[in-house]
Amino acid sequence: MDYKHYFDWAGTTPGDKDILRQSLELSLEHWGNPSSIHSCGTDAKKYLEEARARSAKVLGVKPEDLYFTSGGTEGDHIPLLSMLARPQKGSVAVSSLEHPALREMAKMISNCGWKVITIPSDKRGFITPEAVVSCLQDDTAFVTVMAVNNETGAIEPIYEISDAITNATLGKRRPFFHVDCVQAAGKIPLDLNYKGIDSASFSAHKICGPRGIGLLYLAKSITPFLRGGGQEKNIRSGTENVFGATAFSKCLEKYYISKENELLMKRFEEQKKYTSDFIKGLLALPNCRIIPHERAEDSSFDKNFSPWVVQASFHGIPGQVMVRALDAKGFYISTGSACSAGKNSRPILDAMKVSADEKETAVRFSFGIPTTEDAMKDLLEAVKSVCSVFLK
Amino acid sequence: MDYKHYFDWAGTTPGDKDILRQSLELSLEHWGNPSSIHSCGTDAKKYLEEARARSAKVLGVKPEDLYFTSGGTEGDHIPLLSMLARPQKGSVAVSSLEHPALREMAKMISNCGWKVITIPSDKRGFITPEAVVSCLQDDTAFVTVMAVNNETGAIEPIYEISDAITNATLGKRRPFFHVDCVQAAGKIPLDLNYKGIDSASFSAHKICGPRGIGLLYLAKSITPFLRGGGQEKNIRSGTENVFGATAFSKCLEKYYISKENELLMKRFEEQKKYTSDFIKGLLALPNCRIIPHERAEDSSFDKNFSPWVVQASFHGIPGQVMVRALDAKGFYISTGSACSAGKNSRPILDAMKVSADEKETAVRFSFGIPTTEDAMKDLLEAVKSVCSVFLK
Repeated sequence: MDYKHYFDWAGTTPGDKDILRQSLELSLEHWGNPSSIHSCGTDAKKYLEEARARSAKVLGVKPEDLYFTSGGTEGDHIPLLSMLARPQKGSVAVSSLEHPALREMAKMISNCGWKVITIPSDKRGFITPEAVVSCLQDDTAFVTVMAVNNETGAIEPIYEISDAITNATLGKRRPFFHVDCVQAAGKIPLDLNYKGIDSASFSAHKICGPRGIGLLYLAKSITPFLRGGGQEKNIRSGTENVFGATAFSKCLEKYYISKENELLMKRFEEQKKYTSDFIKGLLALPNCRIIPHERAEDSSFDKNFSPWVVQASFHGIPGQVMVRALDAKGFYISTGSACSAGKNSRPILDAMKVSADEKETAVRFSFGIPTTEDAMKDLLEAVKSVCSVFLK
Repeated sequence: MDYKHYFDWAGTTPGDKDILRQSLELSLEHWGNPSSIHSCGTDAKKYLEEARARSAKVLGVKPEDLYFTSGGTEGDHIPLLSMLARPQKGSVAVSSLEHPALREMAKMISNCGWKVITIPSDKRGFITPEAVVSCLQDDTAFVTVMAVNNETGAIEPIYEISDAITNATLGKRRPFFHVDCVQAAGKIPLDLNYKGIDSASFSAHKICGPRGIGLLYLAKSITPFLRGGGQEKNIRSGTENVFGATAFSKCLEKYYISKENELLMKRFEEQKKYTSDFIKGLLALPNCRIIPHERAEDSSFDKNFSPWVVQASFHGIPGQVMVRALDAKGFYISTGSACSAGKNSRPILDAMKVSADEKETAVRFSFGIPTTEDAMKDLLEAVKSVCSVFLK
């Protein structure tokens, strides 16, 4: 498949061919089990640790705080489920905008005697520090708010939330604070060393890496609940994936946006302009509204959104119809996260109290580093053309 | 690394270069998210389902009963942890010979109000149907016994155990019976359709496939505890891995021993002879004993072992010393599972009540389909040479 007119980069990305091929060759050559003590094992372990060190350097953290996982879902599960290893039960506070790996997983641990508190979103799709603090209870042991929302692109105020948790729990045991960075990595600069961010999860396939590999950053030690062979210092059991780890580390080097990477920062600034133009173009359509409306109405507010994601509704055209009509023209977008593509529910838009009409007609456009300005102009024309057909 | 003198196939295997390269190319071409509803997604989904169908054909089961996982550990976790989704708590019966993905994971769910019953092994490393039945309690909801033990090669009587569970629970709710097939697949023929086998787990990297991909066979429906995006019919959340699934399916076609595959059955029979000769050669060494002793002492008993694994002790030579001495000669073996290679404990041998001296001096030799008779003869000479040096 060609990806010129692919606009579902928040769903997944095409693998970087050079990186994936080279990483596969490396893993075919150094194929031992990194946990084996013989030379085949230590030979492979060297490359696993090299991948960890490369990743750490890009992410600006210590290699010993990084753990390879099987992907974003597991990176969210490990810190949340570590609660089940604690001797005392309590409550977990989960934002209403989280990926189901946290939202749905949290519901299940209520079966193990834990209480789940849902942190409400405001109507614009933001979790405010005040909302978090007002949810904290004396027994709240875990709080989670994502860095960038996968459906609206809202950049959540994770640093302010971290401070607010600290201040609200002074003199008490501070809850563990986990940040899902799956949609933030490679999209906006992040400061993982910010005080009070205890863990963060990452997924390779969102930045042109392979499926089946992710990273968990742990600044604070946890007692793991999920157990097995004890690999990754007992944090993530399962034979280590040298191919995945190597490819992920190289994708981080190539695609992870950080202030240290001038080229990517330039690309990031460019995208802000492309997306701003794209939104302006969409708004010229009488039936289009950006979700949340404030993103388009107030130019100073736009900075609170990832320029790589736009959620928009097209009155009169159900989201699924728009997806299929664009698909027929060779343009690929989605109604929301791929994880819930098969379902008709839109829990994130529900949490934002988006009207039934807008929810029904909302779609997501998402972009990647290889997306060109011209391709986005093509997309705009294609959307206009669909609207003109359906609204005749 | 060359694998001619690699004898740790139970730990991991070298990837099949052709299969892995071809599968990577396929996944680079069909790179969409199989859960996306646009053409990029449906294009990728086709290949995912093709991999499922291929795997099902080889395993002799229905494609709709197979779920791709991230590996053997997750394939064990999913059925065990599904207990935590049940409204009533009870007990789980776990054999003392299981991989830590079951043994250690079970210990953790005791923190969630479940009781863990350990099914004792006999001294020869077998879980008898009687031992299982005597462990069953009225509230036992889950039983697990592996098909082939990873340390001794013991072929556990899973079919007799399944029957025994059925008979012991007539008129009551039969517990769920899970079989870890990670060390059995590609090693001995299996009958997954045997009545009462409710689930089975598989890992690709044990049969020359990539890391990070496994299969879970579910004959009986479960309510999943681990949640997320709801992929794999909600049984295993996380973006689907087309590369891994394709490669695994092709490795199953090439390496999965079944009665339908004459070539592999012939190789299987050959290996029985090679291993029998290897054991005889080892026993010529005055300080060597096979674990369990009965395997060598009674030729009719040898049929109860996978010919691909031999556990042996060498009095006077600590296992780690043997591993390192052979390593220096370019022969790769292990003291036990790679998962516990870093630790000094030998829980499987403990469960068999192996003497302290034998435990300390025990090592595992394991073989794969590409292992040659000549290479095994070389290994025997290398072991003899190590013994002659250390026992002078």
